Amino acid sequence: MTPIRLALVGLGKIARDQHLPSIAADPRFELVAIVSRNAELDGVAHFTALADLLTSDVTVDAVALCTPPQPRHALAHLALAAGKHVMLEKPPGATLSEVEDLRQAAAERSLTLQTTWHSRYAIGVEPAREWLAERAIKAVRINWKEDVRVWHPGQDWIWDAGGLGVFDPAINALSIVTRILPRPFFLSKGVLHVPENKQSPIQAELDFRDAAGAPIRAELDFLQTGPQSWDIEVDTEDGQLKLTHGGAKLYIDGQLMREGPDQEYPGLYDAFAKLIADGASDVDVSPLRHVADAFLLSERVTAPAFVE
Amino acid sequence: MTPIRLALVGLGKIARDQHLPSIAADPRFELVAIVSRNAELDGVAHFTALADLLTSDVTVDAVALCTPPQPRHALAHLALAAGKHVMLEKPPGATLSEVEDLRQAAAERSLTLQTTWHSRYAIGVEPAREWLAERAIKAVRINWKEDVRVWHPGQDWIWDAGGLGVFDPAINALSIVTRILPRPFFLSKGVLHVPENKQSPIQAELDFRDAAGAPIRAELDFLQTGPQSWDIEVDTEDGQLKLTHGGAKLYIDGQLMREGPDQEYPGLYDAFAKLIADGASDVDVSPLRHVADAFLLSERVTAPAFVE
Repeated sequence: MTPIRLALVGLGKIARDQHLPSIAADPRFELVAIVSRNAELDGVAHFTALADLLTSDVTVDAVALCTPPQPRHALAHLALAAGKHVMLEKPPGATLSEVEDLRQAAAERSLTLQTTWHSRYAIGVEPAREWLAERAIKAVRINWKEDVRVWHPGQDWIWDAGGLGVFDPAINALSIVTRILPRPFFLSKGVLHVPENKQSPIQAELDFRDAAGAPIRAELDFLQTGPQSWDIEVDTEDGQLKLTHGGAKLYIDGQLMREGPDQEYPGLYDAFAKLIADGASDVDVSPLRHVADAFLLSERVTAPAFVE
Repeated sequence: MTPIRLALVGLGKIARDQHLPSIAADPRFELVAIVSRNAELDGVAHFTALADLLTSDVTVDAVALCTPPQPRHALAHLALAAGKHVMLEKPPGATLSEVEDLRQAAAERSLTLQTTWHSRYAIGVEPAREWLAERAIKAVRINWKEDVRVWHPGQDWIWDAGGLGVFDPAINALSIVTRILPRPFFLSKGVLHVPENKQSPIQAELDFRDAAGAPIRAELDFLQTGPQSWDIEVDTEDGQLKLTHGGAKLYIDGQLMREGPDQEYPGLYDAFAKLIADGASDVDVSPLRHVADAFLLSERVTAPAFVE
């Protein structure tokens, strides 16, 4: 089978740490071009702009967009207009409206568009979804608490308008919860704590209810020192499910059921290859929609200034 | 033809001023019940809760939800589960996620769900859409400037979290612009001015671009004294279109082309009757999605305290 000729747009940390090894390990893909203003990769054609690649003699079937979200819509639109399949890093856009536009553009051209939520490919997530599918949910607690100084050093953009603040990591939690819970859920109340010298929240408490009324409480914190928490607990009438380490460990009633090596990005590329083979798309904005709902509905309180 | 037996849920100002006369004037509807905690209407069955109506011997085919947005999702879900068609006043929900849930619930049951955007039925809107459909857009200016003290006296909820502030009227502008412009558009930058003693913006400037790059600038103001503005100007390569008075007057190159009496709510009920007859739904969240995008992406600056 001829591999899918892929271009990677944006060659930052996530592209080097995750995309490049996942592409190299998957025989269904062949990396044929890098688009980056500054960075190059030995042995791979390099372009400083996507438009230059698309008018060159290097043929690509698909592009993976690993740039920050702001320019992503224009790049994706350009790629779709040129007949290329598109993978979008998370979050899939700076706004919901632009993702909806891409969904329509891909559908009109029968091209594959994939919104990626890498945490959904953590090893505990799929078995958690299967276990919960048949059980009555009583309550859900999301604790996503990390030290921004450790995990996001020097990332000033995270505090800017549109930078999402503590929702930058917490959107991973929302991507897991929207996947594993059997029913949709909706924000009823939220509080965002925004440092007096920043635009984006550093802490948040969110109260959702699912369609059957079960409470879902999320506590998000960017100032967590000591033990870090990327945990989701689900109480059911048939015992408690717990995902820890961002989905890498699954416990049922305190007993470790699954753990394993990081397989998230290989899982994304496996899904991308299958979508292309099937002529299908996977456009799910629900995690970003919950974040937008939180910004729309929540009360804002002023938190002390944050200085890195 | 048997009329559609309709229940009105919520009997506040908008229900009395707009819904009741529109229903009375349309022979395709028969008002058979009012659901309201406090208010009643002579000669119409009255219930204090929707659940009581649905288990009573009064048969309804459809419900129009005129309550504030916060309880609307639970009410709509209840009505759909009981097999009733549903009309949602604007905005269709407190969050985008809950409207998506209703869309799916209606589709699963083959029931009609209508998100209503009354300003789209203003007399100038449909001819504006037709005129713009064939023309190249150069720039769009939205000026939505009104005096909150005149138009929203005592409406403290408008300033609360989720109350939308100046977006409560401006969502009408967005409902018109999303209807008349031939291409989708996306927020690229926004500034929200929030009074230091309130949660919701009192002024906003929003910069959008349409899919072909044309700039769309919206200036929203809740502190406008003197002349009020509910105006949309569209520069095309073939002249300028202007909608004023919230869409009630249409000008092309300064010449008045259309004006007429208020026909917005009769238009909504006409559309609702047709959707029910056709077994169709009209679920368009694009105006609310733009508002959520504005809250997600915009910079916030502190404005002076607002005291009514």
